[in-house]
This record gives sequence, structure tokens and C-alpha cells, in this order.
Amino acid sequence: MKLDDFCITSGKGFKLAAFDPESKPFSLGEKDADVAHVADLSARLDAEQDIFYAEHRRKLLFILQGMDTSGKDGTVRSVFRNFDPLGVRVASFKAPTAEELARDYLWRVHLQVPRQGEIAIFNRSHYEDVLITRVHGWIDDEECERRFRQIRAFEEMLTETGTTIIKCFLHISKAEQKRRLEDRIADPQKHWKFDMQDLAERKYWKEYQQSYEAAIAATATPACPWYIVPADSKSHRNLMVAEILADVFHKLKPSYPPPKPELAKVAVE
Amino acid sequence: MKLDDFCITSGKGFKLAAFDPESKPFSLGEKDADVAHVADLSARLDAEQDIFYAEHRRKLLFILQGMDTSGKDGTVRSVFRNFDPLGVRVASFKAPTAEELARDYLWRVHLQVPRQGEIAIFNRSHYEDVLITRVHGWIDDEECERRFRQIRAFEEMLTETGTTIIKCFLHISKAEQKRRLEDRIADPQKHWKFDMQDLAERKYWKEYQQSYEAAIAATATPACPWYIVPADSKSHRNLMVAEILADVFHKLKPSYPPPKPELAKVAVE
Repeated sequence: MKLDDFCITSGKGFKLAAFDPESKPFSLGEKDADVAHVADLSARLDAEQDIFYAEHRRKLLFILQGMDTSGKDGTVRSVFRNFDPLGVRVASFKAPTAEELARDYLWRVHLQVPRQGEIAIFNRSHYEDVLITRVHGWIDDEECERRFRQIRAFEEMLTETGTTIIKCFLHISKAEQKRRLEDRIADPQKHWKFDMQDLAERKYWKEYQQSYEAAIAATATPACPWYIVPADSKSHRNLMVAEILADVFHKLKPSYPPPKPELAKVAVE
Repeated sequence: MKLDDFCITSGKGFKLAAFDPESKPFSLGEKDADVAHVADLSARLDAEQDIFYAEHRRKLLFILQGMDTSGKDGTVRSVFRNFDPLGVRVASFKAPTAEELARDYLWRVHLQVPRQGEIAIFNRSHYEDVLITRVHGWIDDEECERRFRQIRAFEEMLTETGTTIIKCFLHISKAEQKRRLEDRIADPQKHWKFDMQDLAERKYWKEYQQSYEAAIAATATPACPWYIVPADSKSHRNLMVAEILADVFHKLKPSYPPPKPELAKVAVE
């Protein structure tokens, strides 16, 4: 199975329904094997990240989107856990504050873009501004199209100024969300994760899927692709995201900054 | 050996020279055993951190200070690497920008304090404003005393509003710094870490030790203690910082938020 088959670089003919959330296209078979492979990849990526940080030149932006319970937090925990905290930063975008609402919707996002040598992980992002807003009719179609254009231009500017952008849609089924919500209810230690609002949003499942499809189609470009990650299986989800990250580093080929010849003559007193 | 013996809670009688940078008071003997123990502690702390994050109530601020090459980056890498990136954030304070200099020296620091459930690691901090500034005479003694008072008040306010502050001085010898600088010169892959300015600052070794001693003495309180970490040995340094962190969590005793009884009646449609 090739990553390219799950990498959306153009909206042409894109149908979310063509991807099965239950499938495990990158699985090695047994769950244990998948978990072990993520650990292997993670160790290798860890070394790559150290060099990317030392290189201090390019930036990497990893955007995670998905329905409630789709596993955004779990992905960060499992795939990025072994990275050096010096070079990785998570930005979680919740409901905007009054300060944020007083600016344009890209303002708070722009503040959090990665710096040179840094990986920024967006746990939700500006895509919420064309998802929940659209599902509830807070913006009309015309405004939504305008935002798609603004987002394309914003992301294009970021890539042109040295940022690699990877967007992952963690794709779960409605049945799997039901299981996960019920798990949270059944386990008192998970109650803190449960928000009654999640149940209210679940009622709009179909509208969310349509809005995701439209947003992905409108903003998938060769420079800023979307990956559709079948995510009903957590081990598969982690494995596939780790593979995407490995592929990114393989293409970026980070390298140490050049040696400084002038240091040959330096003596430490 | 007890952590208390290295925990400075008052300036009374404090002498930095009483602590030997070469010593390894917490070592288990063999380096391998120390490294393995850090890995064990790290796995346990990892679980504690997850609960601290879930608790979403208190905040933890970990300040790392030390001379150039004392191992601030290495400590982050080794001790905090396995933590969930969702709950850990590193703030590195370099030479202040024009924007930062246009405000008081605590402004940029205040912006980076941890939020509820978060661990913030300060890689250098507001202490630079009573160290390099004093060594070079950019501030006089009167201004320095004023800043000590301001820092005490600032840190007191943070602790009173729910932040646990731990300050670590990574204590290396002048001879060990020489070895580390020479290592960087000898290894082309480490040239990017080498800054000629480090050699210039090294000339002020004695003045820095005096300024550290004064700053630690002036700002060590029971609520905001300093730990002196003998750091000529990297494995000992990591072990001791991990022990300090384990002790903090032991005292904090993080716990999951209480279950929500109202969820008993909830059905997921």
C-alpha cells in the first residue's frame, strides 16, 4: 500500500466515502507488530528530528484534524512522545477567546506557526473555522468559499517561506465514535475527557462529514496535501501517521549545518 | 544522600563552593545503572505527568540555569523526552529582542509561564537579568538588589496562584567546561553549537560564580527553592534532575478530576 493513495493533492474527484475508517491498509498484520514498528520508526525519527533542529533552517507544521474522539491527543502522545521537547511544540486550538475573536480567525493560528528547526503540531486549527462554523450556519457558503481561498493563500505563503505543511484527517466511523464515547462514560478516570457538547455535535455527523469533504477538497494542493488516515484502529492510526512523518523527513533530508573552518585555530584557555 | 542537602531554601550561609561539581552524590555506582534508573524514573514520571495534565488544576515551572555547556539542553532531552508533548513546553530565553527590551525584563518571562496541567521548562530565564547583566556591569548593585526583590515577589505571586516552581543550577567546573568546548571544536557535527561568545564569557568564570551565588542566595525560599546539581557527570546530572522531578510529583500527588455522576444516565445515540 502506498502513502500516495491516501495523500490528497487536489480536490478533483475527492470523495471522503471512498476511504474506509475501519480499514488498516498499512498494518503489518498483528497489532503487536504494528506497535513495535511505530517504536522503531519513532527511534529513527527521533534522530532525524535532532538533525532538523540542529539545521535550524526549515520549519515543519503538522496539522491534526478529526471528529471528537478521533484520536488527535492519542496520536501526539504515541507518535511524538519520544521527540526532544526542545524542537517540538503542540498548539491546541479550543473555542476562541474574546481576545482572539476580536481579530481575524487566522491571527491566533499565525502566532503559533513553527520557528526554524521546530516541529509545530496543531491539535485542531484554522480548519475549525470552516467546519463547526459551517455546520451550524454561523457562516454562509459565500463566506466559506472566501475562507477556503484565504486559507489556501495563507498556507501557500507559509510553504513559500520555508514551512512544510502536512495535514492529517483522522478518519473514524460513527459507530467507532459511539464505542469511544461509551468507553469514556464507563471509565470514571476518563470522565474529564467527556463533554456533553460532544453528544450535541454528534447529531450533526453527516453535516460534519460533508464539511470535511468540502474543506479537504478545497485546500488540498501538491504543496499542502491532506492525508486521509483510517483511524478506527488506534494502532493503525499511529503507524500510518508515523509513516507519513518518516516520509516527510525522507524528503526533507535534514543535515547538520556546515562545519566552521575557523574553529580549527581556536584554543580554549 | 538526601535531596534536601542540595535544596537551598534560604540564602543564609549559602556558599556555592561548598558543592563539588565533580561529585556524584546520587549515583548508584556504575554509569549504566544510573542511565537505567533514569529510564525507570522517566517511565514512572510519564504516568504521573498524564494525571497532572488530566487534573488540569495546578502548574509546574522548572527553571534550568547554568554556565554555557552545563547541559541545559541535554537535561531537557534526557529527562523530559518521554513526556507527552501535550503537557510539556520548553521556553528558551536567548538575548532579548527589541520588542522584549521595550518592556520590563519580566514581561517575556510572564508570557511563557505554564498553564493549568502544564509543565513549562525554562531553558535560561529571568535570572539572566541578574547574571550576565551584573557580570558586565550593565546594572549596578542597587539595581540588582531591586531585581532580586522583584523576582522574589514575581515568583511568590506565581506560587500563590497555583504554580510549583523548581529552580536547578547545573553546576559544572571550569575544567569540565574546557573539555566540553574542546569536544565541540573537535566534532564538526557540533560546530553549530559553538559560539565564539562562549569563549568571551568564559573569561568571566569567577564573576559568574559570584553572581550565581548571590542570585541563588537572594531568591532561594522554602516555596521557590534552588537545587544545586553537580553536573560534571552528565549521567549523574540527569539522574539527579529526574529524582528532583520525582520528588515534586510525590509531593504534588496529582489525581484525576472527580468522576461526573451525571454521566451515569447518558446514552450515546
